[in-house]
Amino acid sequence: MTRILGIDPGLLHTGWAVIETVGNARKYIASGVILPKKTGALSERLAIIFNEVTKLVDTFSPDESSMEITFVNKNPTTTLILGHARAAAMVAISVRNIPVFEYEPNRVKKILTGGGHADKTAVDKMVRILLPGANPKTTDESDAIAIALAHANTTQFEKFIK
Amino acid sequence: MTRILGIDPGLLHTGWAVIETVGNARKYIASGVILPKKTGALSERLAIIFNEVTKLVDTFSPDESSMEITFVNKNPTTTLILGHARAAAMVAISVRNIPVFEYEPNRVKKILTGGGHADKTAVDKMVRILLPGANPKTTDESDAIAIALAHANTTQFEKFIK
Repeated sequence: MTRILGIDPGLLHTGWAVIETVGNARKYIASGVILPKKTGALSERLAIIFNEVTKLVDTFSPDESSMEITFVNKNPTTTLILGHARAAAMVAISVRNIPVFEYEPNRVKKILTGGGHADKTAVDKMVRILLPGANPKTTDESDAIAIALAHANTTQFEKFIK
Repeated sequence: MTRILGIDPGLLHTGWAVIETVGNARKYIASGVILPKKTGALSERLAIIFNEVTKLVDTFSPDESSMEITFVNKNPTTTLILGHARAAAMVAISVRNIPVFEYEPNRVKKILTGGGHADKTAVDKMVRILLPGANPKTTDESDAIAIALAHANTTQFEKFIK
């Protein structure tokens, strides 16, 4: 049995999901969204993400974690802020010695839907099919479930050769 | 008396400096460079920065901290990685409820040297003049002292209106 914490980071909404994998079976445990306050110093908002992810780690004791790799998009400044939020979540997991596996976004989509360019609706649909019990209320939440499922569906061999 | 922790973050070298300010006087306390290992998962390298900055906070009990604002430069991918390192250091300070003040790089240079485009050598030179006892061995270290001094030399009024 492996318990996986999937994180979809963001300064405004950080989606999270906990699933369990036993062989080929996947079990939904919990999911939600961290909503740091919208105003205030960047440092304070990052501290909220760190503290909330720390609580998740302490509550659910995941064995492994997974996150998407961030690429610089059309707005590098937005990407830079996303990188800060991503690091705040990543560090909260890593300081507890839980390995964080990183996957390219297209790979996550491909593992889940068979295509690397599926939109958020297609990902959300597959999440509900693959993981009975999951009822994500936002795309941040379904994206977090998707990254956890993608990690679960990657073989041990593939996980470590990246 | 205010004790200030200045940080110049980076995934390979994170400079740090602790200074004290009593009225117009500035006192050098300590400075150095955190060197996370060069290989391994990003999450593990960020955890080293977080843990080392946490040790600095616990050892020196700073009242305030200061860091430069990161702007996207010619290489957005490098900037994105820098953003991760910056967030790891920032969160370590912020979770202990120490305010992190952010300054534009040109402003730091202007406060120290009178010009916004001073090079690293000019900054290093001014650091040694303004802070007797400081003997930075690398530019990461002198940049960390510079950002601490810049914060010390900013009036309380200026600090909070940004």
